[in-house]
Amino acid sequence: MKPTVISPLPSGGGALQNRRRPLLVKKFGGTSVANIERIRNIARIALASQREGNDVVVVVSAMAGETDRLLKLAHQMHPLPDSREMDVLASTGEQVSVALTALAIQAEGGRAFSLLGHQLPVITDSAFTRARIQRVEQGRLRRALAQGHIVVVAGFQGVDPENNITTLGRGGSDTTAVAVAAALKADVCEIYTDVDGVYTADPRVCPSGRKLSTIPYEEMLELASLGAKVLQVRSVEIAMKYEVPVHVRSTFSEEEGTRIVAREQVLEARKLTGLACERGQARVELLGVECSPEQVAEVTDLLAELNVSVDMFCHARCIQELTRTDISFTLPEGELLRARPHLEQLSKKLDVRVLRVSSDLAKVSLVGIGLRSDPGIAARLCRGLNQQGIPVSGLVVNELRVSCLVESRHADHAIRLLHDTFELVGESSVGELVASAPA
Amino acid sequence: MKPTVISPLPSGGGALQNRRRPLLVKKFGGTSVANIERIRNIARIALASQREGNDVVVVVSAMAGETDRLLKLAHQMHPLPDSREMDVLASTGEQVSVALTALAIQAEGGRAFSLLGHQLPVITDSAFTRARIQRVEQGRLRRALAQGHIVVVAGFQGVDPENNITTLGRGGSDTTAVAVAAALKADVCEIYTDVDGVYTADPRVCPSGRKLSTIPYEEMLELASLGAKVLQVRSVEIAMKYEVPVHVRSTFSEEEGTRIVAREQVLEARKLTGLACERGQARVELLGVECSPEQVAEVTDLLAELNVSVDMFCHARCIQELTRTDISFTLPEGELLRARPHLEQLSKKLDVRVLRVSSDLAKVSLVGIGLRSDPGIAARLCRGLNQQGIPVSGLVVNELRVSCLVESRHADHAIRLLHDTFELVGESSVGELVASAPA
Repeated sequence: MKPTVISPLPSGGGALQNRRRPLLVKKFGGTSVANIERIRNIARIALASQREGNDVVVVVSAMAGETDRLLKLAHQMHPLPDSREMDVLASTGEQVSVALTALAIQAEGGRAFSLLGHQLPVITDSAFTRARIQRVEQGRLRRALAQGHIVVVAGFQGVDPENNITTLGRGGSDTTAVAVAAALKADVCEIYTDVDGVYTADPRVCPSGRKLSTIPYEEMLELASLGAKVLQVRSVEIAMKYEVPVHVRSTFSEEEGTRIVAREQVLEARKLTGLACERGQARVELLGVECSPEQVAEVTDLLAELNVSVDMFCHARCIQELTRTDISFTLPEGELLRARPHLEQLSKKLDVRVLRVSSDLAKVSLVGIGLRSDPGIAARLCRGLNQQGIPVSGLVVNELRVSCLVESRHADHAIRLLHDTFELVGESSVGELVASAPA
Repeated sequence: MKPTVISPLPSGGGALQNRRRPLLVKKFGGTSVANIERIRNIARIALASQREGNDVVVVVSAMAGETDRLLKLAHQMHPLPDSREMDVLASTGEQVSVALTALAIQAEGGRAFSLLGHQLPVITDSAFTRARIQRVEQGRLRRALAQGHIVVVAGFQGVDPENNITTLGRGGSDTTAVAVAAALKADVCEIYTDVDGVYTADPRVCPSGRKLSTIPYEEMLELASLGAKVLQVRSVEIAMKYEVPVHVRSTFSEEEGTRIVAREQVLEARKLTGLACERGQARVELLGVECSPEQVAEVTDLLAELNVSVDMFCHARCIQELTRTDISFTLPEGELLRARPHLEQLSKKLDVRVLRVSSDLAKVSLVGIGLRSDPGIAARLCRGLNQQGIPVSGLVVNELRVSCLVESRHADHAIRLLHDTFELVGESSVGELVASAPA
């Protein structure tokens, strides 16, 4: 993964850098800006925080449903819309939000100033619809803060070096917020959302799921990668790299949520941190591939070329024929459609014995640093599920996670079972479990 | 009025400037981009023109109704919304249109590239919501044309020198189109609209109204200023200054519309060019003002400060008291509300005898170069209306126009009557009349 470069504080900004007012970045998602009344609520939250003596930057997403509406228009116009124009279109959602949020703050008596991705600017590469932030400039933002403004920044959008508008992919506003917080060396980046924190397991699926007070960056990164929708993966990467303290909390209450921090700041030692679940997965098996490095490379090259989100890649000696190997991996069902004809073509070319595709699967993952020291956890997980009649197809273990594939219809049951299993075995003090926010 | 500065062609662009492919700028208004199917129609028009060997630039407005929807949101948020944020909000309308239009061209097999106001860029002053274009850069646009793209430019929007988004006021996309055409020295600027040209009188009001084949810049400027909605006034000013040939035509047919050109290119000599009507006017009369230059200056200063659209300003000796004068003027009813308390305050201060305000008036104007040589036309106009029982309150005559005020309920009748009167008196060959597009 290419590292993200966030510009350091510019030199020569002496006076500004000497400020000691705390600086908070507050990010509000689509449901928090869904209508006029909710935007007023954001304005009040931001103003209350400013009155307490903080400098405040607000990052907003598009109003809930707006991005989908815009993308639907694009698809009505063109079956495979050009990604540059998609970004021109999609970025209007956040543009509407920043203007309305700034007006709401002004209507409540405050000073507010909006900045779009190209105005800040948030410089990205040119990978339209999934651009990566390279640099966040802060001069204009700092000037506006110094003038007493609450600065309202458009999430999700940036600009490439040729001044083309780019967007950061689903959930990109989280990444904007964390990147802005990193550039400004903010005291905290607060992610306001419709859940009140990060849970040991999605409480809608698993009633015994509990809210965590803290979680280390690494575990949050794994959970986000494995289907937890509470934060975009990239935002956690940046937070970890620049040690930005992140606070996930509810827009609709003042309660403390979950703080994402460096491991040494996590008060309770935990071996296992949480459970995440990613539905809508497909599994592809290429059984009986000629056993040579070139053949395997052809498969991985194709997957890289198709730019699909491959996980659980396994490469094992074929059971039937010792000169052949089996290759298997998972990918989202949505990407299977696109990849399938290419995979079938390659199977013929490589004389693969069997190409098997299964779908309607869920990837259930257990995350925690305890896996480093206790590989037996994976075995206990499989055994637990099998005993309850849930067949496990595919298992991947690494230092921070165990993931297994189950049929979608078994997913909820598996989560409840695993949540209870790992608390029941006496690990409740060290085995606090974290799960995804609602999918 | 501050003159508009359009940048000259940059020096050193040798190869590009030697091109001899004709260059057309085509502007499509809100009804022409109202839905997916209409945008496809634009794509087909642009592609057909490109296939005929032209370089094509398309300028689009927001989808019909979109700008009003956005402004309504802003007003729900704040009773007097900040104009900088209004422009951030309003400019999203055109941004959606350019992306969809570019996608439509691509869907029809063409190459297309969108450019927003800040990407071109269209540099304006910082008068948010009514900015004036200072310069149009053309480097990026020319590069995209050279690559075979149809370039789709967002109308109505620009960017000030501090990279703030600005908008050009109602109908601003016309101005964008003409300014781009001026900067590129385009062969023609085609204004596609839902009427098929400029008429001697609005045909919905006056069935004998006829479409004009040509009209000089000066007369078009007067008509646009006097309520003809077919073109924004500023666009005609720029067209006149840079001698951009403008062609007003229908989006829905290939018929020739009306060409706006220099006077010497108008084939038929005409003394009178057209009739325009502006409804929703109010008249303010300050009767019996102390007769001193300072007193009059106080009135004009106030009007300038309030930034209201004053017309028909008259300053005449008071009939009752010879040491006092009467001042009267018109302004749109929409602006009266804001101006009234200030006018009442000033009236008290100046000890004005009577402050009289009348509303629900229409300003009916006859435009034509013939007024320079025949001041009797004004008298005939008044007499004609009075004979039909239409009272005329207020009359202004200058070199190119006669305007009179009538009650709104008499406006349609007055237009039909004047249209017929000036043709009936044998001036049909020299007295072709032009009227506003539908209001």
